[in-house]
Amino acid sequence: MVGPYKKNINSEEKGELARFASLLVKDHSVIGVGSGTTIEFFLVYLSERMEKEKMNLKFIASSNKIAKKAEELDLVLIGIEETHSIDQAFDGADRVDGNANLIKGGGGSLFRERQVLLKSEERYILADCSKFKEDFSGQVIPLEIIPFNAFYTIERIEVLGYKAALRKDGESYFITDNGNWIVDVTKDINEPLLNIYEQLKLISGVVEVGLFLNDDFRLVKPKQLNDG
Amino acid sequence: MVGPYKKNINSEEKGELARFASLLVKDHSVIGVGSGTTIEFFLVYLSERMEKEKMNLKFIASSNKIAKKAEELDLVLIGIEETHSIDQAFDGADRVDGNANLIKGGGGSLFRERQVLLKSEERYILADCSKFKEDFSGQVIPLEIIPFNAFYTIERIEVLGYKAALRKDGESYFITDNGNWIVDVTKDINEPLLNIYEQLKLISGVVEVGLFLNDDFRLVKPKQLNDG
Repeated sequence: MVGPYKKNINSEEKGELARFASLLVKDHSVIGVGSGTTIEFFLVYLSERMEKEKMNLKFIASSNKIAKKAEELDLVLIGIEETHSIDQAFDGADRVDGNANLIKGGGGSLFRERQVLLKSEERYILADCSKFKEDFSGQVIPLEIIPFNAFYTIERIEVLGYKAALRKDGESYFITDNGNWIVDVTKDINEPLLNIYEQLKLISGVVEVGLFLNDDFRLVKPKQLNDG
Repeated sequence: MVGPYKKNINSEEKGELARFASLLVKDHSVIGVGSGTTIEFFLVYLSERMEKEKMNLKFIASSNKIAKKAEELDLVLIGIEETHSIDQAFDGADRVDGNANLIKGGGGSLFRERQVLLKSEERYILADCSKFKEDFSGQVIPLEIIPFNAFYTIERIEVLGYKAALRKDGESYFITDNGNWIVDVTKDINEPLLNIYEQLKLISGVVEVGLFLNDDFRLVKPKQLNDG
């Protein structure tokens, strides 16, 4: 396992979330897709529905990995620059708090995932039971950082009271789709999440922070399945 | 010309600044070098002095271009990760205001230049007469941005009241040593520069901002030459 978050091996729950989410997709749309196993399930269910209902969809991928999965399913991929806005985005999360704030980046695609979400009209987040926490204190927040002088960037993060670990992928450093590195940071958070986000994003060398603060996310979660 | 700032063709003045700065270098030091024509002159003068005085220096380059120049002069280059701190840094600037704030990035190396300056004990900025402005209102500020979804990033910059132009290099987009793009922005600034810096750095997609706010810079300027 590369990232800091254990995979939930409850595939049944993920499958149910993914199936439910696939029914929310509107025909003739541009769909942004995040990364992770739940989103892979989502694409499988959606491709089945597309075939059955002869749906016409275009997809924008937030990682090379999910793009490959979409290609395997013969989905039509377009570049993010080819559309002015994305109709619906479907993504996962590593952690969700009580205010629908998210931690993302366990898979290392936090930058592109944020860009896809930013450009989307509707943002659906699929989160199984294992992802919900009351607050984010002590949880790992992934950051994307520029490799040049990275160890000094990490020192400047640590000076702010964070523990920081440069993510590895086997013997090498993990490399993002942007050619950058990931550092996983933790801190006992007792200040507003927006402050944490800004403090980290303002550090020279930090490209993006894996905190996604409530941006009108629509949660697709097990509770809803029970209600439905 | 690629960048937004015209080169000062007064080579004589630049040469004088460079020669003066070369005398500030302490033997047995690690020297960080910025980019630009003045810094190229500086390296030429310094290499002459090194030979004459049998000086022992190591260099850290802030761009591939200046690294090449250093190699031509047979200077010893080391990687920025190979030293815990840089003794002295010598860099240029595109604009300097009355409070020793800088605009940098005309050559596109703003990220690595900032990293070198950040890691340096002493920071010398060589600036000829053409660089000084009372304030930065209406001056071009270069930003380094991630290419993925860059046009949307630019839109979000423009929403804040900036005019933005993606920098080109001939028919292609200008590419930084980090593999990113440069966008040159302007605005009639009537708010504190720190606000401008933070507003831009916080935008997702913006890697670095070419505003270098007074970080104990020691200006090497024509006035000093006259005083000296």
